[in-house]
Order: sequence, then C-alpha cells, then structure tokens
Amino acid sequence: MIMIAKQLSYRLCAGFIMICEVIFLPRFFAAACNIAKGVVILSGADKEHIKVLRLKIGDRITVCDGSGRDHHCLLTKIKNDTAEAEITASEPSPAEPSVKCTVLAGISKGERSDYTVQKCTEAGAAEIIFFSSARSVSRINEKNTAGKTARWQRIAEEAAKQSGRGMIPKVSCVFEFADTLNIAVSSDLSLFLYETGERIPLKKALCDARPFSSAAVMTGPEGGFERFEADLAAAAGLILCSLGPRILRCETAPVVALSALMFHTDNL
Amino acid sequence: MIMIAKQLSYRLCAGFIMICEVIFLPRFFAAACNIAKGVVILSGADKEHIKVLRLKIGDRITVCDGSGRDHHCLLTKIKNDTAEAEITASEPSPAEPSVKCTVLAGISKGERSDYTVQKCTEAGAAEIIFFSSARSVSRINEKNTAGKTARWQRIAEEAAKQSGRGMIPKVSCVFEFADTLNIAVSSDLSLFLYETGERIPLKKALCDARPFSSAAVMTGPEGGFERFEADLAAAAGLILCSLGPRILRCETAPVVALSALMFHTDNL
Repeated sequence: MIMIAKQLSYRLCAGFIMICEVIFLPRFFAAACNIAKGVVILSGADKEHIKVLRLKIGDRITVCDGSGRDHHCLLTKIKNDTAEAEITASEPSPAEPSVKCTVLAGISKGERSDYTVQKCTEAGAAEIIFFSSARSVSRINEKNTAGKTARWQRIAEEAAKQSGRGMIPKVSCVFEFADTLNIAVSSDLSLFLYETGERIPLKKALCDARPFSSAAVMTGPEGGFERFEADLAAAAGLILCSLGPRILRCETAPVVALSALMFHTDNL
Repeated sequence: MIMIAKQLSYRLCAGFIMICEVIFLPRFFAAACNIAKGVVILSGADKEHIKVLRLKIGDRITVCDGSGRDHHCLLTKIKNDTAEAEITASEPSPAEPSVKCTVLAGISKGERSDYTVQKCTEAGAAEIIFFSSARSVSRINEKNTAGKTARWQRIAEEAAKQSGRGMIPKVSCVFEFADTLNIAVSSDLSLFLYETGERIPLKKALCDARPFSSAAVMTGPEGGFERFEADLAAAAGLILCSLGPRILRCETAPVVALSALMFHTDNL
C-alpha cells in the first residue's frame, strides 16, 4: 500500500487564484552526490523505506536533492542494499517558500526545542539555530550539543518529508550571543521579538520592510531577553518588534512569528 | 517572591505605533459570583496560589472575571481558606483580540489535542471545539469525553493565565459533523481549511471578507477531511481555503491558521 499525499499548485483562473490538486508520490531526500546523469541511488534508511512501502520496479517516486529541487523518478533497480531510480522530470519544489527564513531560538528545556524544530520545519523555516542567552535555563556548549543537534536534525528531516518540503532545514547551535546577532543581521530583514520595552508591531516591521528574500526571526528562551540583549540587538541592526499583547511561550513564539511572516509574504 | 510579568499597551507616537511597557501583577480568574460590590473573593487553588507566591495584605493583583475584563486589586484579607481583594480599577483586558475566533479541530491522538488547546489559547482563540470526522483515528462520544474535556479546560486555564488572557477559552466536544458545521457558520466568517481540491488561499479569504467580529476556523484530523465533508462544508456556507503548499500536521494547522488570522486583524 503506497500512501499518496497531496501537493498543490497555484493556477490563475478568471482573475483569481484557485488552488488545484496535484497528486504526489513517496518522497525521499538524496544527497547531491547520489544524483548523477539522470539517475538517483537510494540506500540505507531510504532503501528500507522503499521496502516498507512495498515499492517495485516501475513505481514512481519523488526525490528531493535537499536544496529545493524535486526530481520525479521511476524505480529501475531494487537490490538488497540500494535502489536506483531514473529521473523523468525535475522542477523547483513548489512547497519551498520564496523567502529564506532563519529561525534563531533561545534554547529551551526538554521537548520544547524538539517542538520548535518540528513546527518551524512545517511552517517553512530554511534554517533553525539555537542559542543560549542571559536567562536561558538550559545551557549549550560544544560538548553537550552534538547528540542534541543530531536528534533535532532527524526531527527536521522527518517533518520535511511529512510536510512535502524540498529541503531539510539545517539545525545547529551558536554559543556566543554576539555570533547569534551577526548571523541574524546577515539576512535582508532581521527581526528581534521582544516581549517588553519599546518596539513596533511585527506587522509594521514587515509592511515597512524593503522587498526581502531572506529574513531572520530571533526569539528568546523561557525567561525572555534581558534589556541589555535587546539593546545589543538594536545596536547590531535588528528590528525590535512585538508578537502582540499575549505572552507566548518560548516554543510558541517562533512558529507564530514564522506563520505571520509566511502569511505576509504569500507563502501560506 | 512575586513573579512580575509584562503587559503592553499601544501608544500613538508621532504618527506611528510604539509599544510601551506596563508591568502587570499576579493574575487570577474569578467567577463572576465571587466579584461583588468592589470586592473579589478568592478560594481553592487561587488561595493556594496566593500562598505559593507569598503575597501579603496590601499587595497588588489582577483578577479577571473570565469575560475579558481585568480588575486591578489590593489584597485586604488573607484567611485560611479564602482571600479578599478590593478592586481599585477595572478595564477591558488589553490581551483579548478584537475578533472572537472559534477553533473547530478534528480530534487527534494523545497529546496532540492538548497541544492544540494550549497553543490556540496562547494565540487568542475564544473557544476550542473538538469533533470527530470520517478519517479520525480517535473517536469521541458522550461517554469518553468528560474526563478529557476537564483536562483540556485545565490546560486552557493554565495557558490563559500564563499568556495574560482576559478570559479562559471554553473547550468542548461536538459529536455530529452536521452540528460542527452549524456552529462554524454561526460566526461572521467561517473558514474550512482543506488540504486538497479546489479552494482559495487563506489570505484571499481574509482579504475578501466583509468586516467581521467573529470567525470560525475548522481543521481536520490526522488523515484530513474526506471530499464529501468538504462538499458538505461548502454547501453549509463555509469558505474552503488553503494553508499553503506545505502539508501541516493536524495539531499544527489550527495554530498556524489562528496566527495568520490574528496577524491579519491586527491582533498579533
């Protein structure tokens, strides 16, 4: 039994946008080195997945190269350890947003960070970076993050497959607050979500922005940001803005901000 | 030690909106029957909370009447079982959205529904209603929902307090799909989030809508909606719309849709 998921395309009909159904097929991510001369080689967990789905020679699959391009393929060989598929057509993944959004999230306790990774992947983040700041309950350093980062990357991969993404967001950690700010300001639009003090509504920040193709959204840990951190962010060039009059949990704020950004830029 | 949370107010400064800081105090919800003649009586868990926070006579607290009004109070009596506070000022809760949004969510497995309740409360839902539909993995009926509903209501109360809401969203279950549709169409704007078939983008549905003060957002269970359910929804008057090209999990869709709606209506 092959699970058929749905994918969508936008079509301009009589002056308004109508969304139509396009069926898409089992979805795999393959490293670029496994895609060459019109052929894709799948191995490891992907080969297992082919077995679980009981796919056979001649079945159609979609293989993403992990950088936003979908390859439509026909399975041509199924061996013990690998499978081969022939590329019949390629296109930019229709599920990838037009804006590359980097989520910079204050590291939080336990499952909250897992949640941030899963939901932000579904909502369209291009990259997810955790950092610790003055009020962080959890602390990250080079020693304790390797295992965590590997788990988050698996969560991102799973969520990317399930939601039909054309790439898997990279998940990583940054250990210095100044480095976090430097990463944030490398985007066209850099937003610092701050729950107090002087800031502008997120909507004003987005409406006032010059056209942007990349954005950074920076949110705090459980206890929020310290005032000096907001001052540093403003000095670095981030825009201090608000997510409204309700206090959102640290794992809720990134997905709400990302949803608003995707909605505003017609990526929702 | 009193935990001081932050609340915000909007101020018009030199032609643009600047958000300023207003400190607010420990937050309680009291039934209307416990608020009379300028005095609030707190008992049960609220009295325990006063003890945990080590509040004393003369300390300031905020008491919400659960219908969107904040009462600023001074503690005047602390007894074994109850506490009394004198109301010094009252105002509409600044955290309540201008649009009353009812979230109708397909019942989902395990913790996913808990998540829907917590996140939608933070994001500003006025009411959360679970229903089962053709593809629901979990089934609800009058027998098995009493305990679940009580737990969800506690989650909503906790999230309402934490996020500074002026009311606790009511959480309930509906057992017939037709009843769910009837509830949805009683709002000014009724949206049916559908992951396939012909529908319009959520943004178009919101931009085209006449001014609305209430909205219903209906999302499906794990397997999504059946086509006949979407047809019934359209026939009932709901607008079939899309949450974009990525397939969102059943517990992610309501909070993403609600975030977009709150952003669009200037409630974020």
